[in-house]
Amino acid sequence: MLPGKFIVIEGLEGAGKSSAISIVEQALNNKQVSFDKTREPGGTPLAEKLRELVKSADHSELVTQETELLLMYAARSQLLVNKILPSLEKGLWVIGDRHDLSSRAYQGGGRQIPDDVIGGIANATLKGFTPDLTIYLDIDPKIGLKRARARGELDRIELEAMSFFERTRDKYLLIANHDDSIVIVDASQSMEQVHQDIEKHVNQFIDFHKS
Amino acid sequence: MLPGKFIVIEGLEGAGKSSAISIVEQALNNKQVSFDKTREPGGTPLAEKLRELVKSADHSELVTQETELLLMYAARSQLLVNKILPSLEKGLWVIGDRHDLSSRAYQGGGRQIPDDVIGGIANATLKGFTPDLTIYLDIDPKIGLKRARARGELDRIELEAMSFFERTRDKYLLIANHDDSIVIVDASQSMEQVHQDIEKHVNQFIDFHKS
Repeated sequence: MLPGKFIVIEGLEGAGKSSAISIVEQALNNKQVSFDKTREPGGTPLAEKLRELVKSADHSELVTQETELLLMYAARSQLLVNKILPSLEKGLWVIGDRHDLSSRAYQGGGRQIPDDVIGGIANATLKGFTPDLTIYLDIDPKIGLKRARARGELDRIELEAMSFFERTRDKYLLIANHDDSIVIVDASQSMEQVHQDIEKHVNQFIDFHKS
Repeated sequence: MLPGKFIVIEGLEGAGKSSAISIVEQALNNKQVSFDKTREPGGTPLAEKLRELVKSADHSELVTQETELLLMYAARSQLLVNKILPSLEKGLWVIGDRHDLSSRAYQGGGRQIPDDVIGGIANATLKGFTPDLTIYLDIDPKIGLKRARARGELDRIELEAMSFFERTRDKYLLIANHDDSIVIVDASQSMEQVHQDIEKHVNQFIDFHKS
């Protein structure tokens, strides 16, 4: 077992991931736990280049859903080997802005790529590595996208139809309901209540692992 | 069945792929067959960007063998959907400078990534699409690399140890010996003999399919 712990924040656009990450940071700081932060796709020079390619809305060619999936995992492989694992091995905790669950939900749910296809690529890339705690911020995409749109420009994935995000949310919930390492936070509650819920889960997790 | 045919030239660095492609072009021209040309990785704007990333020897981070494999297939997916299939559907033939067999040989043989891992990604990406004819130019890597080095700068993959290329050649031969759509040309013969062998195979193939 690695000495550090990997906590991931997941959810649709506009679910409040950035605020959630700040709360996790604060909780770790309060308990004097040292940590690094990552975001996916991205987080290494090569992975950031792949992020740009996959998010760009102005390709002159059709970007296949297989290309999108493969680029996501290529970026994840770079991040895992060059950042996440070295940090965890040093005893640092890592806060991840998205990880594998995003691909399962967006590409598996939203794009409807079969689970065994994604599973095969995930196993080849991650070799069984999984986060220690995932906080999934559950939000109706109608509400989430409204918040995201208010923030400004949308990327290629954020321009998908509403049904895409509904399938993505369904997949998030399906997986979260069958995995004990994923907690679901109702992100449609008042901001105060959402923050309290996140704090509660993170503090329980820290207390359990720092004891 | 698609109206066009896909002919691929394969082989190690320095096997003589460029000359072989010229011979195939000439043979198609002689028989008045219209064709397009592709090279892999690459061949679309996005795939060419991925080619640059995968071939660059100056990454500041470790490029994992999984990343390399995933980027190869991402580029291949773009090329297949945006170039190869549209050409074949229009009745054009396509000459490919490398295709899937390169990944099987380099990543499967050279890098020793398990066949089922590559097979899973290949099936997800290519969905059963295969070339109609592959001409594999077989060369001892000691000879091939000497020729390639004489040409100038080497990319990241060309900087591998000799054992990498020996495993790659073994895999090429193993697959070619079990696949009737792949012909093996002994590229260590005199240039004249190699050219005659390629011409013979291509003309037989054209005559069979143009009759």
